[in-house]
Amino acid sequence: LISKAHISQIRLLHHKKHRDAQGLFIVEGVKSCMEVLHSNLEVAESYLLSRGSERGLEVGDHWINISEKEMSKISCLTSPSEMLCIVKKPKYDLNCLERDKPLLVLDAIRDPGNLGTIIRTADWFGFSEILCSEDCVEFTNPKVIQSSMGSFTRVKVVYADLVSFLETERDRTVYGLFTKGEPIGKQLFKKNDIVILGSESHGISEPLFSFLNNRIEIPVFLHQAGIPESLNAAVAAGIFMYEYRIHSSRCC
Amino acid sequence: LISKAHISQIRLLHHKKHRDAQGLFIVEGVKSCMEVLHSNLEVAESYLLSRGSERGLEVGDHWINISEKEMSKISCLTSPSEMLCIVKKPKYDLNCLERDKPLLVLDAIRDPGNLGTIIRTADWFGFSEILCSEDCVEFTNPKVIQSSMGSFTRVKVVYADLVSFLETERDRTVYGLFTKGEPIGKQLFKKNDIVILGSESHGISEPLFSFLNNRIEIPVFLHQAGIPESLNAAVAAGIFMYEYRIHSSRCC
Repeated sequence: LISKAHISQIRLLHHKKHRDAQGLFIVEGVKSCMEVLHSNLEVAESYLLSRGSERGLEVGDHWINISEKEMSKISCLTSPSEMLCIVKKPKYDLNCLERDKPLLVLDAIRDPGNLGTIIRTADWFGFSEILCSEDCVEFTNPKVIQSSMGSFTRVKVVYADLVSFLETERDRTVYGLFTKGEPIGKQLFKKNDIVILGSESHGISEPLFSFLNNRIEIPVFLHQAGIPESLNAAVAAGIFMYEYRIHSSRCC
Repeated sequence: LISKAHISQIRLLHHKKHRDAQGLFIVEGVKSCMEVLHSNLEVAESYLLSRGSERGLEVGDHWINISEKEMSKISCLTSPSEMLCIVKKPKYDLNCLERDKPLLVLDAIRDPGNLGTIIRTADWFGFSEILCSEDCVEFTNPKVIQSSMGSFTRVKVVYADLVSFLETERDRTVYGLFTKGEPIGKQLFKKNDIVILGSESHGISEPLFSFLNNRIEIPVFLHQAGIPESLNAAVAAGIFMYEYRIHSSRCC
Protein backbone atom coordinates (compact mmCIF):
# COMPACT_ATOMS: atom_id res chain seq x y z
CA LEU A 1 0.00 0.00 0.00
CA ILE A 2 1.09 3.51 -0.73
CA SER A 3 -0.31 6.73 0.74
CA LYS A 4 -2.05 9.38 -1.35
CA ALA A 5 0.57 11.92 -0.34
CA HIS A 6 3.33 9.60 -1.46
CA ILE A 7 1.61 8.96 -4.80
CA SER A 8 1.49 12.72 -5.35
CA GLN A 9 5.16 13.01 -4.49
CA ILE A 10 6.11 10.32 -7.00
CA ARG A 11 3.92 11.88 -9.67
CA LEU A 12 5.94 15.08 -9.30
CA LEU A 13 8.87 13.14 -10.72
CA HIS A 14 7.09 13.09 -14.09
CA HIS A 15 8.34 16.68 -14.36
CA LYS A 16 11.91 17.85 -14.87
CA LYS A 17 11.74 20.56 -12.22
CA HIS A 18 10.92 18.07 -9.50
CA ARG A 19 13.40 15.45 -10.72
CA ASP A 20 16.07 18.13 -10.39
CA ALA A 21 14.82 19.30 -6.99
CA GLN A 22 14.47 15.80 -5.50
CA GLY A 23 17.47 14.30 -7.31
CA LEU A 24 15.38 11.28 -8.29
CA PHE A 25 13.91 9.79 -11.46
CA ILE A 26 11.55 7.00 -12.46
CA VAL A 27 12.49 3.77 -14.23
CA GLU A 28 9.75 1.44 -15.45
CA GLY A 29 9.55 -2.05 -16.89
CA VAL A 30 10.96 -5.37 -15.73
CA LYS A 31 13.96 -5.25 -18.06
CA SER A 32 15.02 -1.69 -17.22
CA CYS A 33 14.43 -2.14 -13.48
CA MET A 34 16.48 -5.35 -13.48
CA GLU A 35 19.32 -3.54 -15.22
CA VAL A 36 19.18 -0.75 -12.64
CA LEU A 37 19.33 -3.31 -9.83
CA HIS A 38 22.44 -4.87 -11.34
CA SER A 39 24.11 -1.51 -11.94
CA ASN A 40 25.93 1.02 -9.78
CA LEU A 41 22.86 3.24 -9.66
CA GLU A 42 21.25 3.68 -6.28
CA VAL A 43 17.60 2.69 -5.94
CA ALA A 44 15.53 4.74 -3.49
CA GLU A 45 12.25 2.83 -3.75
CA SER A 46 10.96 -0.11 -5.78
CA TYR A 47 7.37 -1.02 -6.54
CA LEU A 48 5.95 -4.26 -7.81
CA LEU A 49 2.47 -5.37 -8.81
CA SER A 50 1.14 -8.19 -6.62
CA ARG A 51 0.98 -10.51 -9.63
CA GLY A 52 4.64 -9.77 -10.33
CA SER A 53 5.37 -10.66 -6.74
CA GLU A 54 3.56 -13.98 -7.21
CA ARG A 55 5.82 -14.70 -10.18
CA GLY A 56 8.82 -14.20 -7.86
CA LEU A 57 9.98 -11.00 -9.50
CA GLU A 58 11.46 -9.42 -6.35
CA VAL A 59 15.17 -8.93 -6.37
CA GLY A 60 16.43 -8.48 -2.86
CA ASP A 61 14.46 -6.68 -0.14
CA HIS A 62 12.48 -3.49 0.10
CA TRP A 63 9.99 -4.22 -2.66
CA ILE A 64 6.65 -2.59 -2.06
CA ASN A 65 3.66 -4.48 -3.40
CA ILE A 66 1.04 -2.24 -4.97
CA SER A 67 -2.19 -2.67 -6.93
CA GLU A 68 -2.61 -2.03 -10.65
CA LYS A 69 -4.60 1.07 -9.79
CA GLU A 70 -1.78 2.44 -7.64
CA MET A 71 0.78 1.57 -10.31
CA SER A 72 -1.21 3.42 -12.97
CA LYS A 73 -1.20 6.48 -10.72
CA ILE A 74 2.56 6.65 -10.28
CA SER A 75 3.46 5.42 -13.78
CA CYS A 76 4.39 7.70 -16.71
CA LEU A 77 3.16 5.08 -19.17
CA THR A 78 -0.30 4.62 -20.65
CA SER A 79 0.17 0.85 -20.20
CA PRO A 80 2.12 0.53 -16.94
CA SER A 81 4.43 -2.42 -16.41
CA GLU A 82 4.82 -4.70 -13.38
CA MET A 83 7.83 -2.89 -11.96
CA LEU A 84 8.74 0.69 -11.18
CA CYS A 85 11.86 1.97 -9.43
CA ILE A 86 12.67 5.40 -8.07
CA VAL A 87 16.36 5.91 -8.74
CA LYS A 88 18.83 8.46 -7.41
CA LYS A 89 20.12 10.74 -10.14
CA PRO A 90 23.82 10.02 -10.59
CA LYS A 91 26.16 13.01 -10.46
CA TYR A 92 28.02 12.88 -13.75
CA ASP A 93 30.37 15.70 -14.64
CA LEU A 94 33.27 16.38 -16.99
CA ASN A 95 35.59 14.34 -14.75
CA CYS A 96 33.67 11.22 -15.86
CA LEU A 97 34.98 11.60 -19.40
CA GLU A 98 37.96 9.44 -20.25
CA ARG A 99 40.26 11.45 -22.51
CA ASP A 100 41.76 8.45 -24.29
CA LYS A 101 38.42 7.31 -25.72
CA PRO A 102 36.24 8.52 -28.59
CA LEU A 103 33.58 10.97 -27.50
CA LEU A 104 30.19 11.64 -29.05
CA VAL A 105 29.00 15.18 -28.36
CA LEU A 106 25.32 16.09 -28.80
CA ASP A 107 24.37 19.71 -29.44
CA ALA A 108 20.76 20.68 -28.69
CA ILE A 109 19.20 17.23 -29.18
CA ARG A 110 15.76 17.86 -27.71
CA ASP A 111 13.77 14.82 -28.80
CA PRO A 112 13.72 12.31 -25.92
CA GLY A 113 13.23 9.30 -28.22
CA ASN A 114 16.33 10.30 -30.16
CA LEU A 115 18.48 10.74 -27.06
CA GLY A 116 17.29 7.41 -25.64
CA THR A 117 18.06 5.62 -28.91
CA ILE A 118 21.48 7.30 -29.10
CA ILE A 119 22.29 6.09 -25.55
CA ARG A 120 21.21 2.56 -26.52
CA THR A 121 23.33 2.66 -29.69
CA ALA A 122 26.34 4.11 -27.83
CA ASP A 123 26.11 1.15 -25.45
CA TRP A 124 26.11 -1.26 -28.44
CA PHE A 125 29.18 0.33 -29.98
CA GLY A 126 31.16 0.77 -26.79
CA PHE A 127 30.88 4.52 -26.36
CA SER A 128 30.69 4.56 -22.59
CA GLU A 129 30.14 8.31 -22.30
CA ILE A 130 28.13 10.93 -24.17
CA LEU A 131 28.58 14.66 -23.71
CA CYS A 132 25.44 16.79 -24.10
CA SER A 133 25.03 20.53 -24.40
CA GLU A 134 23.01 22.00 -21.58
CA ASP A 135 19.98 22.48 -23.85
CA CYS A 136 19.74 18.78 -24.75
CA VAL A 137 16.81 16.92 -23.21
CA GLU A 138 17.82 15.49 -19.80
CA PHE A 139 18.52 11.77 -19.79
CA THR A 140 16.25 11.13 -16.79
CA ASN A 141 13.21 12.17 -18.85
CA PRO A 142 10.86 9.14 -18.80
CA LYS A 143 10.82 8.88 -22.60
CA VAL A 144 14.62 8.90 -22.76
CA ILE A 145 14.79 6.18 -20.11
CA GLN A 146 12.15 4.16 -21.96
CA SER A 147 13.81 4.31 -25.36
CA SER A 148 17.32 3.72 -24.02
CA MET A 149 16.16 0.18 -23.04
CA GLY A 150 18.34 -0.06 -19.96
CA SER A 151 21.48 1.34 -21.61
CA PHE A 152 21.32 4.44 -19.38
CA THR A 153 22.69 2.16 -16.64
CA ARG A 154 25.93 1.67 -18.60
CA VAL A 155 26.43 4.88 -20.59
CA LYS A 156 27.25 8.05 -18.67
CA VAL A 157 25.46 11.11 -20.00
CA VAL A 158 27.33 14.27 -19.01
CA TYR A 159 25.92 17.79 -19.44
CA ALA A 160 28.23 20.77 -19.86
CA ASP A 161 28.82 24.00 -21.71
CA LEU A 162 30.35 22.76 -24.96
CA VAL A 163 32.42 25.87 -25.71
CA SER A 164 34.16 25.73 -22.34
CA PHE A 165 34.73 22.00 -22.73
CA LEU A 166 36.16 22.25 -26.24
CA GLU A 167 38.54 24.99 -25.11
CA THR A 168 40.21 22.43 -22.83
CA GLU A 169 40.51 19.78 -25.59
CA ARG A 170 42.64 21.59 -28.17
CA ASP A 171 44.91 18.56 -28.65
CA ARG A 172 42.09 16.29 -29.88
CA THR A 173 40.64 16.17 -33.39
CA VAL A 174 37.09 17.49 -33.49
CA TYR A 175 34.71 16.38 -36.26
CA GLY A 176 31.32 17.88 -36.96
CA LEU A 177 28.55 15.99 -38.80
CA PHE A 178 26.95 18.13 -41.49
CA THR A 179 24.73 17.43 -44.50
CA LYS A 180 27.71 18.51 -46.65
CA GLY A 181 31.31 17.65 -45.87
CA GLU A 182 33.92 14.96 -46.46
CA PRO A 183 32.42 11.45 -46.60
CA ILE A 184 32.46 9.87 -43.16
CA GLY A 185 33.73 6.58 -44.64
CA LYS A 186 36.96 8.23 -45.78
CA GLN A 187 38.06 9.51 -42.40
CA LEU A 188 40.87 7.93 -40.45
CA PHE A 189 39.54 8.31 -36.95
CA LYS A 190 41.92 8.15 -34.03
CA LYS A 191 41.06 6.54 -30.74
CA ASN A 192 40.30 9.73 -28.84
CA ASP A 193 38.51 11.80 -31.47
CA ILE A 194 35.52 13.99 -30.71
CA VAL A 195 32.49 13.99 -33.00
CA ILE A 196 29.73 16.59 -32.67
CA LEU A 197 26.17 15.93 -33.83
CA GLY A 198 23.68 18.78 -33.99
CA SER A 199 19.90 18.78 -34.05
CA GLU A 200 18.03 17.79 -37.22
CA SER A 201 16.48 21.19 -37.66
CA HIS A 202 19.33 23.52 -36.70
CA GLY A 203 22.52 21.48 -37.07
CA ILE A 204 25.60 22.31 -35.03
CA SER A 205 25.41 25.72 -33.40
CA GLU A 206 27.72 28.43 -34.67
CA PRO A 207 29.78 29.09 -31.52
CA LEU A 208 31.20 25.57 -31.95
CA PHE A 209 32.37 26.07 -35.55
CA SER A 210 35.79 27.45 -34.61
CA PHE A 211 36.62 24.22 -32.76
CA LEU A 212 35.98 21.94 -35.74
CA ASN A 213 38.96 20.38 -37.51
CA ASN A 214 36.83 18.53 -40.08
CA ARG A 215 33.32 18.73 -41.45
CA ILE A 216 32.06 15.28 -42.35
CA GLU A 217 28.89 13.95 -43.97
CA ILE A 218 26.97 10.72 -44.33
CA PRO A 219 26.67 10.64 -48.12
CA VAL A 220 23.21 10.82 -49.62
CA PHE A 221 22.52 8.41 -52.48
CA LEU A 222 20.65 10.36 -55.13
CA HIS A 223 18.09 8.23 -56.91
CA GLN A 224 15.32 10.53 -58.02
CA ALA A 225 14.07 14.09 -58.16
CA GLY A 226 13.44 15.10 -54.55
CA ILE A 227 15.82 14.37 -51.73
CA PRO A 228 15.29 14.26 -47.99
CA GLU A 229 16.60 17.20 -45.97
CA SER A 230 18.44 15.20 -43.36
CA LEU A 231 18.75 11.91 -41.55
CA ASN A 232 17.13 11.27 -38.20
CA ALA A 233 19.62 12.24 -35.44
CA ALA A 234 19.69 8.76 -33.87
CA VAL A 235 20.24 7.08 -37.25
CA ALA A 236 23.06 9.54 -38.04
CA ALA A 237 24.65 8.91 -34.64
CA GLY A 238 24.34 5.15 -35.19
CA ILE A 239 26.01 5.30 -38.60
CA PHE A 240 28.81 7.44 -37.20
CA MET A 241 29.47 5.08 -34.27
CA TYR A 242 29.35 2.06 -36.59
CA GLU A 243 31.78 3.67 -39.01
CA TYR A 244 34.06 4.76 -36.18
CA ARG A 245 34.31 1.25 -34.74
CA ILE A 246 34.69 -0.40 -38.14
CA HIS A 247 37.39 2.09 -39.14
CA SER A 248 39.28 1.68 -35.90
CA SER A 249 39.40 -2.07 -36.47
CA ARG A 250 39.98 -1.93 -40.22
CA CYS A 251 43.49 -1.70 -41.60
CA CYS A 252 43.73 1.17 -44.09
CA LEU B 1 -15.33 27.17 -42.91
CA ILE B 2 -15.88 23.49 -42.47
CA SER B 3 -19.09 21.75 -41.36
CA LYS B 4 -19.37 19.75 -38.14
CA ALA B 5 -20.26 16.65 -40.14
CA HIS B 6 -17.17 17.08 -42.29
CA ILE B 7 -14.95 17.56 -39.24
CA SER B 8 -16.27 14.26 -37.88
CA GLN B 9 -15.58 12.57 -41.20
CA ILE B 10 -11.97 13.80 -41.24
CA ARG B 11 -11.47 12.78 -37.62
CA LEU B 12 -12.40 9.21 -38.60
CA LEU B 13 -9.17 9.19 -40.64
CA HIS B 14 -7.23 9.16 -37.37
CA HIS B 15 -8.12 5.45 -37.31
CA LYS B 16 -6.79 2.72 -39.56
CA LYS B 17 -10.20 1.16 -40.22
CA HIS B 18 -11.55 4.35 -41.70
CA ARG B 19 -8.38 5.16 -43.64
CA ASP B 20 -8.76 1.74 -45.26
CA ALA B 21 -12.49 2.19 -45.89
CA GLN B 22 -12.21 5.72 -47.31
CA GLY B 23 -8.88 5.17 -49.07
CA LEU B 24 -7.59 8.45 -47.62
CA PHE B 25 -5.01 9.57 -45.08
CA ILE B 26 -3.92 12.78 -43.35
CA VAL B 27 -0.68 14.65 -43.92
CA GLU B 28 0.23 17.58 -41.66
CA GLY B 29 2.88 20.27 -41.59
CA VAL B 30 4.04 22.77 -44.18
CA LYS B 31 7.06 20.70 -45.24
CA SER B 32 5.21 17.40 -45.65
CA CYS B 33 2.20 19.01 -47.37
CA MET B 34 4.51 20.82 -49.80
CA GLU B 35 6.24 17.54 -50.62
CA VAL B 36 2.87 15.89 -51.25
CA LEU B 37 1.85 18.72 -53.58
CA HIS B 38 5.05 18.26 -55.58
CA SER B 39 4.68 14.48 -55.73
CA ASN B 40 2.57 12.05 -57.74
CA LEU B 41 0.22 11.58 -54.81
CA GLU B 42 -3.33 12.81 -55.30
CA VAL B 43 -4.63 15.38 -52.85
CA ALA B 44 -8.35 15.19 -52.06
CA GLU B 45 -8.63 18.25 -49.79
CA SER B 46 -6.23 20.81 -48.39
CA TYR B 47 -6.66 23.03 -45.36
CA LEU B 48 -4.78 26.12 -44.35
CA LEU B 49 -4.92 28.40 -41.34
CA SER B 50 -5.92 31.96 -42.22
CA ARG B 51 -2.56 33.25 -40.98
CA GLY B 52 -0.82 30.78 -43.30
CA SER B 53 -2.96 32.12 -46.11
CA GLU B 54 -1.85 35.66 -45.26
CA ARG B 55 1.75 34.50 -45.56
CA GLY B 56 0.94 33.32 -49.11
CA LEU B 57 1.26 29.63 -48.29
CA GLU B 58 -1.35 28.39 -50.82
CA VAL B 59 -0.01 26.30 -53.61
CA GLY B 60 -2.50 26.27 -56.47
CA ASP B 61 -6.25 26.30 -55.98
CA HIS B 62 -8.68 24.53 -53.73
CA TRP B 63 -7.21 25.57 -50.41
CA ILE B 64 -9.79 25.85 -47.69
CA ASN B 65 -9.10 28.47 -45.05
CA ILE B 66 -9.94 27.35 -41.54
CA SER B 67 -9.54 28.68 -38.01
CA GLU B 68 -7.06 27.36 -35.44
CA LYS B 69 -9.98 25.85 -33.56
CA GLU B 70 -11.12 23.93 -36.62
CA MET B 71 -7.57 22.85 -37.38
CA SER B 72 -7.12 21.49 -33.88
CA LYS B 73 -10.30 19.44 -34.36
CA ILE B 74 -9.17 17.69 -37.53
CA SER B 75 -5.47 17.44 -36.62
CA CYS B 76 -3.81 14.32 -35.16
CA LEU B 77 -1.18 16.49 -33.46
CA THR B 78 -1.23 18.07 -30.03
CA SER B 79 0.31 21.20 -31.58
CA PRO B 80 -1.31 21.43 -35.03
CA SER B 81 0.56 23.01 -37.90
CA GLU B 82 -0.64 25.57 -40.45
CA MET B 83 -1.36 23.03 -43.18
CA LEU B 84 -3.22 19.76 -43.42
CA CYS B 85 -3.91 17.71 -46.54
CA ILE B 86 -6.20 14.75 -47.07
CA VAL B 87 -4.41 12.48 -49.50
CA LYS B 88 -5.59 9.51 -51.55
CA LYS B 89 -3.94 6.28 -50.47
CA PRO B 90 -1.73 5.10 -53.34
CA LYS B 91 -2.24 1.52 -54.50
CA TYR B 92 1.19 -0.05 -54.18
CA ASP B 93 1.58 -3.77 -54.83
CA LEU B 94 4.34 -6.26 -55.64
CA ASN B 95 4.43 -5.00 -59.24
CA CYS B 96 5.92 -1.74 -57.89
CA LEU B 97 9.10 -3.56 -56.85
CA GLU B 98 11.97 -3.30 -59.29
CA ARG B 99 13.78 -6.62 -59.33
CA ASP B 100 17.19 -5.21 -60.29
CA LYS B 101 17.46 -3.10 -57.15
CA PRO B 102 18.28 -3.87 -53.52
CA LEU B 103 15.22 -4.48 -51.40
CA LEU B 104 14.74 -3.90 -47.69
CA VAL B 105 12.11 -6.21 -46.23
CA LEU B 106 10.53 -5.44 -42.85
CA ASP B 107 9.02 -8.24 -40.81
CA ALA B 108 6.49 -7.24 -38.14
CA ILE B 109 7.80 -3.72 -37.51
CA ARG B 110 4.93 -2.33 -35.45
CA ASP B 111 6.37 0.88 -34.04
CA PRO B 112 5.20 3.79 -36.23
CA GLY B 113 8.18 5.99 -35.33
CA ASN B 114 10.55 3.25 -36.44
CA LEU B 115 8.77 2.69 -39.76
CA GLY B 116 8.67 6.43 -40.47
CA THR B 117 12.38 6.76 -39.69
CA ILE B 118 13.18 3.74 -41.87
CA ILE B 119 11.25 5.32 -44.79
CA ARG B 120 13.18 8.57 -44.29
CA THR B 121 16.51 6.72 -44.18
CA ALA B 122 15.61 4.60 -47.23
CA ASP B 123 14.98 7.84 -49.12
CA TRP B 124 18.43 9.13 -48.07
CA PHE B 125 20.20 5.98 -49.25
CA GLY B 126 18.27 5.53 -52.48
CA PHE B 127 16.13 2.56 -51.53
CA SER B 128 13.04 3.58 -53.48
CA GLU B 129 10.89 0.71 -52.25
CA ILE B 130 10.36 -1.11 -48.96
CA LEU B 131 8.49 -4.38 -48.63
CA CYS B 132 6.55 -4.88 -45.39
CA SER B 133 4.91 -7.97 -43.94
CA GLU B 134 1.18 -7.57 -43.54
CA ASP B 135 1.53 -7.20 -39.76
CA CYS B 136 3.81 -4.15 -40.01
CA VAL B 137 2.22 -0.84 -39.02
CA GLU B 138 0.58 0.79 -42.08
CA PHE B 139 2.56 3.64 -43.58
CA THR B 140 -0.45 5.99 -43.62
CA ASN B 141 -0.54 5.95 -39.80
CA PRO B 142 -0.16 9.62 -38.74
CA LYS B 143 2.94 8.89 -36.65
CA VAL B 144 4.62 7.11 -39.56
CA ILE B 145 3.82 10.04 -41.86
CA GLN B 146 5.11 12.48 -39.25
CA SER B 147 8.43 10.74 -38.64
CA SER B 148 9.07 10.00 -42.31
CA MET B 149 9.43 13.78 -42.81
CA GLY B 150 8.00 13.79 -46.33
CA SER B 151 9.96 10.76 -47.54
CA PHE B 152 6.72 8.74 -47.87
CA THR B 153 6.15 10.78 -51.06
CA ARG B 154 9.24 9.22 -52.66
CA VAL B 155 9.59 5.75 -51.13
CA LYS B 156 6.95 3.15 -52.05
CA VAL B 157 5.90 1.01 -49.12
CA VAL B 158 4.42 -2.28 -50.35
CA TYR B 159 2.60 -4.77 -48.10
CA ALA B 160 2.53 -8.46 -48.95
CA ASP B 161 2.76 -11.95 -47.55
CA LEU B 162 6.54 -12.42 -47.26
CA VAL B 163 6.57 -16.21 -47.70
CA SER B 164 4.67 -16.02 -50.99
CA PHE B 165 6.92 -13.18 -52.17
CA LEU B 166 10.18 -14.94 -51.28
CA GLU B 167 9.00 -18.09 -53.11
CA THR B 168 9.04 -16.06 -56.33
CA GLU B 169 12.56 -14.64 -55.72
CA ARG B 170 14.66 -17.81 -55.49
CA ASP B 171 17.36 -16.39 -57.79
CA ARG B 172 18.18 -13.48 -55.46
CA THR B 173 20.42 -13.60 -52.38
CA VAL B 174 18.44 -13.16 -49.18
CA TYR B 175 20.17 -11.83 -46.05
CA GLY B 176 18.64 -11.76 -42.59
CA LEU B 177 19.80 -9.35 -39.86
CA PHE B 178 20.31 -11.14 -36.55
CA THR B 179 22.09 -10.29 -33.31
CA LYS B 180 24.53 -13.11 -34.17
CA GLY B 181 25.79 -13.81 -37.69
CA GLU B 182 28.55 -12.85 -40.11
CA PRO B 183 29.63 -9.20 -39.73
CA ILE B 184 27.64 -6.99 -42.08
CA GLY B 185 30.82 -5.14 -43.09
CA LYS B 186 32.33 -8.31 -44.58
CA GLN B 187 29.51 -9.04 -47.02
CA LEU B 188 29.84 -8.45 -50.73
CA PHE B 189 26.36 -7.30 -51.52
CA LYS B 190 25.10 -7.51 -55.09
CA LYS B 191 22.87 -4.90 -56.63
CA ASN B 192 19.60 -6.80 -56.29
CA ASP B 193 20.01 -8.43 -52.88
CA ILE B 194 17.19 -8.75 -50.39
CA VAL B 195 17.75 -7.96 -46.70
CA ILE B 196 15.18 -8.83 -44.05
CA LEU B 197 14.93 -6.95 -40.76
CA GLY B 198 12.73 -8.30 -37.97
CA SER B 199 11.23 -6.61 -34.95
CA GLU B 200 13.42 -5.71 -31.97
CA SER B 201 11.56 -8.03 -29.62
CA HIS B 202 10.93 -11.07 -31.83
CA GLY B 203 13.47 -10.87 -34.65
CA ILE B 204 12.76 -12.45 -38.02
CA SER B 205 9.82 -14.86 -37.91
CA GLU B 206 10.56 -18.55 -38.33
CA PRO B 207 8.62 -19.23 -41.56
CA LEU B 208 11.14 -16.99 -43.34
CA PHE B 209 14.24 -18.87 -42.12
CA SER B 210 14.29 -21.35 -45.01
CA PHE B 211 14.61 -18.50 -47.51
CA LEU B 212 17.73 -17.03 -45.92
CA ASN B 213 21.07 -17.49 -47.69
CA ASN B 214 23.09 -15.60 -45.04
CA ARG B 215 22.64 -14.52 -41.47
CA ILE B 216 24.39 -11.23 -40.83
CA GLU B 217 24.97 -9.07 -37.77
CA ILE B 218 25.93 -5.54 -36.86
CA PRO B 219 28.85 -6.28 -34.54
CA VAL B 220 28.52 -5.26 -30.92
CA PHE B 221 31.59 -3.62 -29.38
CA LEU B 222 32.06 -5.11 -25.92
CA HIS B 223 33.37 -2.57 -23.45
CA GLN B 224 32.07 -3.57 -20.06
CA ALA B 225 30.02 -6.08 -18.10
CA GLY B 226 26.46 -5.75 -19.35
CA ILE B 227 25.54 -5.48 -23.00
CA PRO B 228 22.42 -4.20 -24.69
CA GLU B 229 20.03 -6.79 -26.11
CA SER B 230 19.62 -5.24 -29.52
CA LEU B 231 19.82 -2.11 -31.60
CA ASN B 232 16.78 0.02 -32.36
CA ALA B 233 15.19 -1.24 -35.60
CA ALA B 234 15.54 2.10 -37.42
CA VAL B 235 19.21 2.42 -36.42
CA ALA B 236 19.88 -1.17 -37.58
CA ALA B 237 18.12 -0.47 -40.89
CA GLY B 238 20.14 2.73 -41.29
CA ILE B 239 23.45 0.98 -40.68
CA PHE B 240 22.54 -1.77 -43.13
CA MET B 241 21.55 0.70 -45.87
CA TYR B 242 24.70 2.75 -45.26
CA GLU B 243 26.90 -0.34 -45.42
CA TYR B 244 25.09 -1.59 -48.54
CA ARG B 245 25.66 1.67 -50.40
CA ILE B 246 29.25 2.03 -49.25
CA HIS B 247 30.01 -1.55 -50.19
CA SER B 248 28.43 -1.21 -53.61
CA SER B 249 30.61 1.81 -54.32
CA ARG B 250 33.76 0.49 -52.63
CA CYS B 251 36.26 -1.59 -54.54
CA CYS B 252 37.03 -4.80 -52.63
